Amino acid sequence: MARTVADLGEFGVIARIERAAGRLAGRGVELGIGDDAAVLRPPPGERLLVSTDALVEGVHFLWRSQSPRTVGRRSLVAALSDLAAMGARPLGWTLALALPPGLPVTRLDALVRGLVFEAERHRAPLVGGNVTRGERTSLTLTVLGAAAPDRILTRRGARAGDRILVTGRLGAAALQVAQSRRARGQVRHVAEPRLAAGRALARVAGVGGCIDISDGLDADLGHLLRAGRRPLGARLDAESLPLPRGFGAACRRAGLDPERLARTGGEDYELLFTVRPEAPSAAVLARRLKVPVSEIGTVTARPQAAPEPAGEGGWRHF
Amino acid sequence: MARTVADLGEFGVIARIERAAGRLAGRGVELGIGDDAAVLRPPPGERLLVSTDALVEGVHFLWRSQSPRTVGRRSLVAALSDLAAMGARPLGWTLALALPPGLPVTRLDALVRGLVFEAERHRAPLVGGNVTRGERTSLTLTVLGAAAPDRILTRRGARAGDRILVTGRLGAAALQVAQSRRARGQVRHVAEPRLAAGRALARVAGVGGCIDISDGLDADLGHLLRAGRRPLGARLDAESLPLPRGFGAACRRAGLDPERLARTGGEDYELLFTVRPEAPSAAVLARRLKVPVSEIGTVTARPQAAPEPAGEGGWRHF
Repeated sequence: MARTVADLGEFGVIARIERAAGRLAGRGVELGIGDDAAVLRPPPGERLLVSTDALVEGVHFLWRSQSPRTVGRRSLVAALSDLAAMGARPLGWTLALALPPGLPVTRLDALVRGLVFEAERHRAPLVGGNVTRGERTSLTLTVLGAAAPDRILTRRGARAGDRILVTGRLGAAALQVAQSRRARGQVRHVAEPRLAAGRALARVAGVGGCIDISDGLDADLGHLLRAGRRPLGARLDAESLPLPRGFGAACRRAGLDPERLARTGGEDYELLFTVRPEAPSAAVLARRLKVPVSEIGTVTARPQAAPEPAGEGGWRHF
Repeated sequence: MARTVADLGEFGVIARIERAAGRLAGRGVELGIGDDAAVLRPPPGERLLVSTDALVEGVHFLWRSQSPRTVGRRSLVAALSDLAAMGARPLGWTLALALPPGLPVTRLDALVRGLVFEAERHRAPLVGGNVTRGERTSLTLTVLGAAAPDRILTRRGARAGDRILVTGRLGAAALQVAQSRRARGQVRHVAEPRLAAGRALARVAGVGGCIDISDGLDADLGHLLRAGRRPLGARLDAESLPLPRGFGAACRRAGLDPERLARTGGEDYELLFTVRPEAPSAAVLARRLKVPVSEIGTVTARPQAAPEPAGEGGWRHF
């Protein structure tokens, strides 16, 4: 009979995760998993950044449409992306897992392997966490990062007249989700948290506000425009939205509107940011950030010009 | 009709929590709730401590046996207690909430008021979090703390010959839970995280290992004895277990064994620690820690002398 999480018990699960994550040595980690708290040495003179993200089975993922390894990978990518959006580099992270007692150990192992895979790629050691029983599987990740005080990007800096830019291409994640729903296949796409690009962007003069696209372009642009003291608007150029290769044709085959999908689809984890008019061009920024950068519109003073925040296709949790 | 969490929506819930927690100004907090990550200024030269704790409806609490305010208070106390056990003071915390869409807003508000009440008492500002839908309510808290590098207590330092001590009194939390089960009443007891006592203990010469009692004396003593390189044992003096006033009579009325309850009941959040033989007496420690301190036994070299870890009454999550 297949072994389950209940066979392992709470401490068995913890020991298993500890073993899997043990290879992740973090230079700033003085004490990792296993005590009441982890002990980290924050880089002198730098600020500490902290962000919490949760993924719940049935809300954010379904076992039938994603492999456990993909769920694990996507969970850590989503959390690290928040550090990327602020120009920080990861110091470590904690994982709170709720697991149904009947969950097969093989599924737990694959989930943890996915998390550890991304953790190794991005040098983000797992430093602690919590395991409890739950009706459904859920993962709550808290990521810790560091950045020099004058190298932190926030959502608030946008001004009327700023140019709006975005890294990479939009819509690939949403297209895969739509295709997998239709064909009952599995979502395999895992986005890249733009950690290096975020750090490079934090060194550019004339950056306004920055956010990562987790809920979709329109929704996250709305957050960016409403983060400052007075709400702003935006004029977007639909023609300049950066779409993945073959995206238009693939959308049409699936009966989807490419522009709509690129604007409302979530989980691309690209950086969306504004720069002052005199800041470097998209081409220069692309060289400095080492990722594609597209200019897609301008910030306006009138909030009514803003796109509808969170269209029907956007992520709404209630 | 009563308003529910679904009526508020994700961003409505976040705005409500942000308002309730807004009074909590943290001196080291440069950017709180509302961006991709919070920004904190870690105290120069100090270490950063991080710990994650989760409470799930149906596993750790039932709405019928605790008021939402008590659930909130106990959640933050449990998390802060991990910082206390290591001698750290709180810098801030994040809150990941999973909420059923049908949860009444009044219940959410009371839960948040309980959290904010403890946060204010212990000067621990809420700096960020996440809100998502869930089948059942769950709270995942990540607390951040700071301590000087030579003032950090860990579980590992116990040695054979050490004296075993405990702060406060044991069993009050477990007795209330047992009484409330029997009488279908509500649990009102909220323990005190021993933050100041933990910091004072970290300044005492000759402390071995330290842990907070969350799962029960026997279970957590087991953790302490197994945290070092080689497992140790303990000889406990049942006569010297510090019991609350009237505890024996109340237990007998409820048909419970007082010693057993004091040893296996969880959530007392007292500090359990060892000191070298030549360290100060319990009476001197009590004065320095400003809480009652009792000496309850000694550490032995032979692990077989250890009490059974996690008896039937202990917390087991699977």
